[in-house]
Amino acid sequence: MIRTNTNYAKLSHRYLFAEIAQQVNTYKAEHPDADIIRLGIGDVTRPLPDAAIQAMHRAVDECADGRTFRGYGPEHGYDFLIDTIIQHDFLPRGIQLDHEEVFISDGAKSDTGNIGDILSTDNIVGITDPVYPVYVDTNIMAGRTLKYIPCHVGNGFTGDIPSEHLDIIYLCYPNNPTGAVITKEKLAEWVNYALREKALILYDSAYEAFIQDDSLPHSIYEIEGAKECAIEFRSFSKTAGFTGIRCGYTVIPKELKGADGTSLNALWNRRQCSKFNGASYISQRGAEAIYTPEGQQQVRATIQHYMKNAQLIRESLAFLGLTVYGGEHSPYIWVSTPDGEDSWGFFHRLLTDANVVVTPGEGFGQHGEGYIRITAFGTWENSLAAMERIKKMI
Amino acid sequence: MIRTNTNYAKLSHRYLFAEIAQQVNTYKAEHPDADIIRLGIGDVTRPLPDAAIQAMHRAVDECADGRTFRGYGPEHGYDFLIDTIIQHDFLPRGIQLDHEEVFISDGAKSDTGNIGDILSTDNIVGITDPVYPVYVDTNIMAGRTLKYIPCHVGNGFTGDIPSEHLDIIYLCYPNNPTGAVITKEKLAEWVNYALREKALILYDSAYEAFIQDDSLPHSIYEIEGAKECAIEFRSFSKTAGFTGIRCGYTVIPKELKGADGTSLNALWNRRQCSKFNGASYISQRGAEAIYTPEGQQQVRATIQHYMKNAQLIRESLAFLGLTVYGGEHSPYIWVSTPDGEDSWGFFHRLLTDANVVVTPGEGFGQHGEGYIRITAFGTWENSLAAMERIKKMI
Repeated sequence: MIRTNTNYAKLSHRYLFAEIAQQVNTYKAEHPDADIIRLGIGDVTRPLPDAAIQAMHRAVDECADGRTFRGYGPEHGYDFLIDTIIQHDFLPRGIQLDHEEVFISDGAKSDTGNIGDILSTDNIVGITDPVYPVYVDTNIMAGRTLKYIPCHVGNGFTGDIPSEHLDIIYLCYPNNPTGAVITKEKLAEWVNYALREKALILYDSAYEAFIQDDSLPHSIYEIEGAKECAIEFRSFSKTAGFTGIRCGYTVIPKELKGADGTSLNALWNRRQCSKFNGASYISQRGAEAIYTPEGQQQVRATIQHYMKNAQLIRESLAFLGLTVYGGEHSPYIWVSTPDGEDSWGFFHRLLTDANVVVTPGEGFGQHGEGYIRITAFGTWENSLAAMERIKKMI
Repeated sequence: MIRTNTNYAKLSHRYLFAEIAQQVNTYKAEHPDADIIRLGIGDVTRPLPDAAIQAMHRAVDECADGRTFRGYGPEHGYDFLIDTIIQHDFLPRGIQLDHEEVFISDGAKSDTGNIGDILSTDNIVGITDPVYPVYVDTNIMAGRTLKYIPCHVGNGFTGDIPSEHLDIIYLCYPNNPTGAVITKEKLAEWVNYALREKALILYDSAYEAFIQDDSLPHSIYEIEGAKECAIEFRSFSKTAGFTGIRCGYTVIPKELKGADGTSLNALWNRRQCSKFNGASYISQRGAEAIYTPEGQQQVRATIQHYMKNAQLIRESLAFLGLTVYGGEHSPYIWVSTPDGEDSWGFFHRLLTDANVVVTPGEGFGQHGEGYIRITAFGTWENSLAAMERIKKMI
């Protein structure tokens, strides 16, 4: 008998963004002439930095010649990329990492989804709410018990430190979906909680490149003690437009141990060696190139482009009388629905009346109800057009 | 408390190929001048087909322009690749597949490793022995009970149909590591067993492109009833030199149901949507190009190159009096150790006396003891040099 994983039956029918795509496609089929502007899924629209383009062309050419051809790379990634990451993303912030502590992957979604493989299914998991659905869905798939940590205006969307014990806590700052940031002081409270409770923080820092105020932490390892209690996930998707190229990385310090003294670094290395064969060589060369002086300049220009969209969206919606959050150190703007309208209702109204796709807050969890998420990843023209359409509608 | 997955403690310390790499590196450090020929890990050496190179250059250029830029692709892969696969790999063999039955991924290792996510951990798993270590390791990680199916000369390395009940059976033909093939008649016996026992066959067909005799099955779906009992894994790694590019695919027919009627196709789609974000767009365009007339011609030339190596290795070792198997429809040659020497001992002797790296059969399981695996994926010159060195040594 083929016994399936029955935990899947506890999931919502579809992954959130697949559900939204389905609803938009249905609308589009019924209204083939509708000019739809998509500010729902957090996908980028700007072309890749030229430095990455040139590096990937060179990498493709290397694969065309038997003398420079690369086959299987190391499962944990090439040293040329790992060393570059440590040099640029961590050392300038006073964080020392061994190259065995950085694992290159095909993206942060895979890593945040797969990390549960090395953790027991009886850990109690704390999930901030609203939240990126991957954390919830992948823990439901594993059969873990979830406890939700409400994030609201009152706590700046950073959650109150729990009074109960949790084994694992997911944190993401700058936050998806609320666009909120966390201060070093508040993050230190979370680290201290984890150290006290011997808990694990899974820190998703995929949006750190959008931080405009340098007093805010880019990495959880800027906080003392974090190496004993935290894994950090990073992505090139939003930083450098790599959503289709697929490259990210995960940091697991060697100091990090399970209750029985097991090294989480060793477990993840074993997991990756057995279930992964490395990220594409071409993608890794592209990622390396974004750390060159030209690459850095190009990445900054792209991020400034998106931040200009974010400002436009923030200010336009505020001008229309809506209450907006985020969008200052983040590509996401979190908007209260007008007159307490429910979030799927407002989503449908925006789709049908303005042909603008956003993400209903309820899709991110119970505490996302009453909000929608808008992304700044569109083009300037589309962001502007969307604001004009919403203005006419409201 | 961070409770880790304690099943990992039951694994061997290192993944087999990581262990071999470690031993070779140690030897290399002690003998820096040694000119080592690596015929151990099944990695390719020929450059990529020119059709794939050109397609990947075009894909990189598309990402450089906002009008043609591609961000997130579908989690299950682009239709342009799925449709091409169905058209070329299945329809000519009389196999009809819906495009929702084909899932593109970053490679067969990921998929054979991750497929367990959708299956209950209490399934009893049958593993042919010797075997590709990923099947064993990933099931140990999940805590499943394994039953080994001995593969030996007596059953042509295709295993005897079990008299006991199994829930899941892994089969791989052309086989890694033995190079054995399976006839349609024998594969039908396995399919009939699975249908009778309501079991699932996980069929790894990563080496089908090496089949020289067209009466042998390339796909398990050439066998009647297989759609109700089998998942098939395919890879571009060995077919088209994609070990560093990362692209493969998995077929899950909609007819395939769990004991409670759950669709395995729907479960895998949900898994991929939540834990994967699609294979690299560039890799998918490269894979598509190998199906063009030029791409097909180039792939065939590469495979013939490796098959020439295989013939050289087979005939040279047979001439030296060793007993050899495989290598006729497979890039792997399976060789009895001389005078019953144990496989790690022969591995070490070949490393130190001939500076040739092979894989000790015991690394693939208990029934691999007394054999080594040699791959035909080296260059012609290295394959020839390795044979000359072994000749001097024996």
